[in-house]
Amino acid sequence: MEITRQLASFVARTAYEDLSAEVIDQARLCLLDWLGVTLAGTREELAPVLNGCITELGGKEQATVLGKGIKTSVLFAALANGTMSHVLDYDDVHAASFSHPSVPLAPAVLAMGEYLRASGKDVLTAFVLGFEVETRIGAAAGRAHYDHGWHATSTIGHFGAAAGAGKLLGLDENRLVHALGIAGTQAGGVRQVFGTMCKPFHAGKAAMDGVLAALLAQRGFTSSDCIVEGKYGFLDVFSPAPQKEKVLAGLGADYQILDVGFKPYASCAGTHTTIDAMKQIQSKAKLAPEDVLEIDLELARLPLDAAGILEPKKALEGKFSVYHCAALAFLEGSVSEDKFTDEKVNDPVLAALRRKVKARLNPEFKLLDAKVTVVTRDGRRLESFVPIPKGQPENPLTFAEMEEKFTGLAALVLPEDNIHQLIARMKSFEQVADVNEVISLCSSGR
Amino acid sequence: MEITRQLASFVARTAYEDLSAEVIDQARLCLLDWLGVTLAGTREELAPVLNGCITELGGKEQATVLGKGIKTSVLFAALANGTMSHVLDYDDVHAASFSHPSVPLAPAVLAMGEYLRASGKDVLTAFVLGFEVETRIGAAAGRAHYDHGWHATSTIGHFGAAAGAGKLLGLDENRLVHALGIAGTQAGGVRQVFGTMCKPFHAGKAAMDGVLAALLAQRGFTSSDCIVEGKYGFLDVFSPAPQKEKVLAGLGADYQILDVGFKPYASCAGTHTTIDAMKQIQSKAKLAPEDVLEIDLELARLPLDAAGILEPKKALEGKFSVYHCAALAFLEGSVSEDKFTDEKVNDPVLAALRRKVKARLNPEFKLLDAKVTVVTRDGRRLESFVPIPKGQPENPLTFAEMEEKFTGLAALVLPEDNIHQLIARMKSFEQVADVNEVISLCSSGR
Repeated sequence: MEITRQLASFVARTAYEDLSAEVIDQARLCLLDWLGVTLAGTREELAPVLNGCITELGGKEQATVLGKGIKTSVLFAALANGTMSHVLDYDDVHAASFSHPSVPLAPAVLAMGEYLRASGKDVLTAFVLGFEVETRIGAAAGRAHYDHGWHATSTIGHFGAAAGAGKLLGLDENRLVHALGIAGTQAGGVRQVFGTMCKPFHAGKAAMDGVLAALLAQRGFTSSDCIVEGKYGFLDVFSPAPQKEKVLAGLGADYQILDVGFKPYASCAGTHTTIDAMKQIQSKAKLAPEDVLEIDLELARLPLDAAGILEPKKALEGKFSVYHCAALAFLEGSVSEDKFTDEKVNDPVLAALRRKVKARLNPEFKLLDAKVTVVTRDGRRLESFVPIPKGQPENPLTFAEMEEKFTGLAALVLPEDNIHQLIARMKSFEQVADVNEVISLCSSGR
Repeated sequence: MEITRQLASFVARTAYEDLSAEVIDQARLCLLDWLGVTLAGTREELAPVLNGCITELGGKEQATVLGKGIKTSVLFAALANGTMSHVLDYDDVHAASFSHPSVPLAPAVLAMGEYLRASGKDVLTAFVLGFEVETRIGAAAGRAHYDHGWHATSTIGHFGAAAGAGKLLGLDENRLVHALGIAGTQAGGVRQVFGTMCKPFHAGKAAMDGVLAALLAQRGFTSSDCIVEGKYGFLDVFSPAPQKEKVLAGLGADYQILDVGFKPYASCAGTHTTIDAMKQIQSKAKLAPEDVLEIDLELARLPLDAAGILEPKKALEGKFSVYHCAALAFLEGSVSEDKFTDEKVNDPVLAALRRKVKARLNPEFKLLDAKVTVVTRDGRRLESFVPIPKGQPENPLTFAEMEEKFTGLAALVLPEDNIHQLIARMKSFEQVADVNEVISLCSSGR
């Protein structure tokens, strides 16, 4: 079975018109979400380090480092934007491929789109096809690939970035085969570096390597014609238990992008069902903190273990405190990135409410199950149970709901006017004639 | 055991003065050999493809693409020169690490040396230390690493390039730890792409990734502090049977560079013992082709299988014909790159002599064993048996002998005057004040 060639053929022949509205909507959501986490990521410590290096090396002004407005080569723009997009660990998730699918792919597609002055339709199409390529290879590499020590986002991201960039370059099937081959043999990224700047760097490097692969293939650079399935190809070398049939099963019919999950809140994933439940209660009850006698949380093991900090003192600790997040959802509704500051974590009103939150394990509860009970001073018991957090494929977010997250993130670096314009552009992204219209809004200069 | 830190410490603290004359001589030989294969490699089909891509992307003029004189960033110079240096498959070999040690390392060290205007001594030191780092990690990854499908030259080359570039940048132990970490998590390169442009690309990409790692580490970018030995680090992820103790065993005492092997002739390795034997006979007998009745070759299985083409018609076929190579060694002495042309392969005098060569298997012969017997018309039988080809660690080449190979390669792209000057510079490379003196001779413009 010619897996690599079939993938390349699929990428070469699939057009915007072949994609369903549902698929396009999901791609639009991925790109909006990616823009938000990337913009906020540019405030992190590693940004000046990486940008300094890129500036030292130089390059033609082909694409933009978002947030900063630095113009550089399409390669380095992909590297910088990809790295920034993963630094907050706040980007989207695809369960079957054990990966964060957008962070290696979107920066490649957007940098190449900017360079080529591609349309919104072209970028959406390239994004969807790159998404299919990387997540299908990831699903075939499977859990065993991740468990062996590979950071799947990085390894399979190389394929997605090459496919997406190659689609924008208009590569034919043969050149796409080689682009995948050049990308795949650059694949790397081990979990040993988790917890360091290299974890987000993986996403940027995958994007950069994928763009390089596409550019080389365009000029006739050659590689293997079976990098995915060959004896010494990706699946057999990188996975102890590959399931090769998964790459092509349902290709063109079952779109993986429909299974993407988003993190609507800036806190640890273990706090999300609690936040959802609290928002449900407060959207009707609209209680004031003085109305509350006690807030009881019944939780599964995972949220308690992952987000059990009782008295957070720092912004980051607040993200890992289900007590703090419950109080924040009660008081502010939004649990966005801008809500996590050292100041707010120590705010007396929030802290007082936080101390009314009690959590206990319910041994019957599974995964992320959470039940919130607000006991009021006047004797009411307001309850809500949420098994699957908002943003998961089974509990999807609307574009309007994602705006809240995006706004909270973008507000950290962009003027309000840019944010409104960006949201408007992304809402009708398929009508954007040149993605430079979007990119130029992503730096505070304008 | 802190393997990564020990390696970094060794690189940080070792100075030129700590290296023996024997080690320095060997490094000089590696660099001369690397320059020759790189210069000749610039004539290959992939050169304009890769250089076109590099020129499209742009970069500050920090280092030179050899042979072409293109000035580009230190990153892309390392990429281009590394790729060109491996395209002829004519570069040096290190058996214990299953790798070609110079092709990912020398381009990184020379590009960085050019950028920093480093001295010959500094470049030699960085080269030796990078060589130790990569080959020791390679020896620990072992045969199992290569057999699993990895191209060791590419994977371990990342570490060598980062260590060499990092040494030139003057990184301290901590930053070298991170440089190795950033390099190691970029490691990749699978054997699936052998036979395509991606094989030599692996060497260039390893050099480029290693240089990037060193530059990032210099600015404070962080990675794991145990990329080599950690649970999800290089050795456990990339090798099914790592022998971690090999990395540090004898470090600073037993220099791996003393075990390097060179290919003095431009033909398939299986022809080299036959060429050596023929050169030995002719150096004394000085026969003319008309003196010869018959040339009998007794060979081991490997040379017969790998170089058994009876009637080569093309230059490349000549390299895989032990018959042709025996005739060439008889007539011309030198079996250098410039001797392999379509014209010469079809030269009537050479072809006539080639037809007098008979080869047969000697089942007792091992590996590359070759015995040549020249039977003359006047009834003499001139014999020579060679078990280990010239250039192997057990049968080393002198600098003067390597000049022949270098001259044959460099003559394909450089004027004679440059070649003489280059040889003179490399002979006393430790006295070169600025490696730009050497680099500027490597383009035909001067």
